[in-house]
Amino acid sequence: MMRVVHKYGGTSVGSLERIRATAKIIQCDLERGYQVAVVVSAMSGETNRLLSLAHDVDADASPRELDALVATGEQVSAALLAMELQRLGIKAYSYNGAQAGFRTDNSYARARIKGVQSDHLMARMEAGEVPVVTGFQGVDEAGNITTLGRGGSDTSAVALAIALKAEVCDIYTDVDGIYTTDPRIVSHASKLDHISYEEMLEFASLGAKVLQTRSVEMAMRFNMPIHLRSSFEDVPGTMVSGEDTGMERAEITGVAYHRDEAKVTIKGIPDQPGIASRVLGPIADANINVDVIVQNVSEQGHTDLTFTVPRVDYATTMKLLNGLCSELNGDKVTGDNGVAKVSIIGVGMRSHAGVARKMFDTLAKENINIQMITTSEIKVTVVMDEKYVELAVRALHSAFGLDSRD
Amino acid sequence: MMRVVHKYGGTSVGSLERIRATAKIIQCDLERGYQVAVVVSAMSGETNRLLSLAHDVDADASPRELDALVATGEQVSAALLAMELQRLGIKAYSYNGAQAGFRTDNSYARARIKGVQSDHLMARMEAGEVPVVTGFQGVDEAGNITTLGRGGSDTSAVALAIALKAEVCDIYTDVDGIYTTDPRIVSHASKLDHISYEEMLEFASLGAKVLQTRSVEMAMRFNMPIHLRSSFEDVPGTMVSGEDTGMERAEITGVAYHRDEAKVTIKGIPDQPGIASRVLGPIADANINVDVIVQNVSEQGHTDLTFTVPRVDYATTMKLLNGLCSELNGDKVTGDNGVAKVSIIGVGMRSHAGVARKMFDTLAKENINIQMITTSEIKVTVVMDEKYVELAVRALHSAFGLDSRD
Repeated sequence: MMRVVHKYGGTSVGSLERIRATAKIIQCDLERGYQVAVVVSAMSGETNRLLSLAHDVDADASPRELDALVATGEQVSAALLAMELQRLGIKAYSYNGAQAGFRTDNSYARARIKGVQSDHLMARMEAGEVPVVTGFQGVDEAGNITTLGRGGSDTSAVALAIALKAEVCDIYTDVDGIYTTDPRIVSHASKLDHISYEEMLEFASLGAKVLQTRSVEMAMRFNMPIHLRSSFEDVPGTMVSGEDTGMERAEITGVAYHRDEAKVTIKGIPDQPGIASRVLGPIADANINVDVIVQNVSEQGHTDLTFTVPRVDYATTMKLLNGLCSELNGDKVTGDNGVAKVSIIGVGMRSHAGVARKMFDTLAKENINIQMITTSEIKVTVVMDEKYVELAVRALHSAFGLDSRD
Repeated sequence: MMRVVHKYGGTSVGSLERIRATAKIIQCDLERGYQVAVVVSAMSGETNRLLSLAHDVDADASPRELDALVATGEQVSAALLAMELQRLGIKAYSYNGAQAGFRTDNSYARARIKGVQSDHLMARMEAGEVPVVTGFQGVDEAGNITTLGRGGSDTSAVALAIALKAEVCDIYTDVDGIYTTDPRIVSHASKLDHISYEEMLEFASLGAKVLQTRSVEMAMRFNMPIHLRSSFEDVPGTMVSGEDTGMERAEITGVAYHRDEAKVTIKGIPDQPGIASRVLGPIADANINVDVIVQNVSEQGHTDLTFTVPRVDYATTMKLLNGLCSELNGDKVTGDNGVAKVSIIGVGMRSHAGVARKMFDTLAKENINIQMITTSEIKVTVVMDEKYVELAVRALHSAFGLDSRD
């Protein structure tokens, strides 16, 4: 018998109307004869409401108590959805993290799942019941309540699907899939029927917030297909899996971009072993996420180091770098807080030579100046002036044959 | 070392200001060198908010899911209070029913506590920590979340005090103790320093809603003293215990009353074995609480049965009785929905003869007609026209020497 895990986010359980609609989707799969387990987030707004109560008590409240507090949000939505399913005549029962067997480590607010003791839920499903499980949470070895961090419900759903040996983990959301690029920029962008785990990870790292990165990593490790689909309309979404889906792969799968980046350069620092970590260490310590990094070829024993940071961290980064520059007897620090990243992504580029060159040619034709380049096996990213983003995305989408025909 | 359990109701954790005040009370006892465990209710209004969400989904939602839903209320307040205690530098940690070891039967919404596995909490207290435990809830043998019913937090607190072998269970509330009678009727009513479990049960059954009956029964069985006191001012309240507190006991401890009663009579029914249960069975089946019951002496094989019911159930009761009257070939049904009960209560009356007579004499002097009488070992209750309640309470309070001297 086909066994599936459905995951619903906060908007899907955020109101009575949405709870009713969500229950209908579950009912549909049951009528198809599937065994269904459900994972839910807290009702939209609830986690913030609870955090605000805590913040009033103590802006610096302990992570253990914060986790115990916010974990109630999913317990509420799980119980409400179970009630609605029961109203439809379905044998549904809610389970919190402890009851569902989610064991985690002890890192409050960002716990990692160690395992799911799913024997009980498995038996209930075999008996024709629908478990409605709280996402985002578990208990550590001592029984303390833990949470997985924002967006952790995706990871809960994938972990449960793996533990229950489900065929697929259906993640219902308010978008209907992954597109070849942002339809707000390219109106004829098309929805991808299928995408590989690696590509999904690259899309996610570029700000496609539809799936939590951890959940994709876990799915990839255990080869659990994720079907990313809309809870608003019953159409196929995008299947994220390890399968190769066709004889012919396009060179690239999609074009992604990320605005709100800043570029910083520290010039004339001594070119000696360990200099990069000497510079980047303090940036990492300040919890600033460093991305594209380029080190210039050394000149007379000195070098330049350039990297990008999120634009919100630009001022802090400049301050840290200026301090470092004095310490290291560097030349000077320069920066530009108006850059963006544009990437082409696709497992197809592994076997197609010249993808990077085609990208650079396409951008050159549009007179777009490339400031930095970084490549991975399935991605080429360029940094450019933010004003060129739309032009670059449209040109690349067209050059790589992604424009849909309709 | 003195070990105590504090219990706080919904108003004591209902706002940031109250949470701060509550934490201060706990801090005081810690500074006295006491070991303190805390039991909390949900923030006032929260349980109703959650029930209303459930009602929107399904007015007839399953008890299991309702329990899982409303149990979150106490988890929220426990976490918030623990945060506040931590802010004061106290090592406090919240525990939900499952974590605190509350094992119950499977009767959702009105579960009974089977035991408290308190080894873990005991060890934490020995290590100088303050457990903040959710009242009102536990888990059954299968791990399902259960609740004890409204007011169940008192019972949770007493059960925890027993399990932890505490010296006393301090129940903090918005009244400062039990009075000899309602101060709204008798302005010189005085607060009782001490009251026995039996007396407390009689007061509670007459509508003194300060303590849940089940909690008093449990405390009596295990001889756990309850200190009923105000969370608004630091003064001694009323100690509820099995101890005899003085050489001389007053004849009675207090005067209680209950308005909103109705009296019904079914006349001329066959006087045969089982007739009372034949009449009262259907009333009980309708979940109507029957109180004072009087059966007249039989006349020519027929008898009358009179009893009181809460006034809200008067119409239903009359309808049921009229049906029964036809079935049993009875004479007729009469009723009066404007009566009240007035009781004198006191363990002292066991050893003082003539207490009942003194009560009847006092009421007669005031020309108050007694409609029905019922007695227990430590209580005499009379049913009267509701309009006499204040007069009767004042006269009895004075006649039994309860008026305070100041």
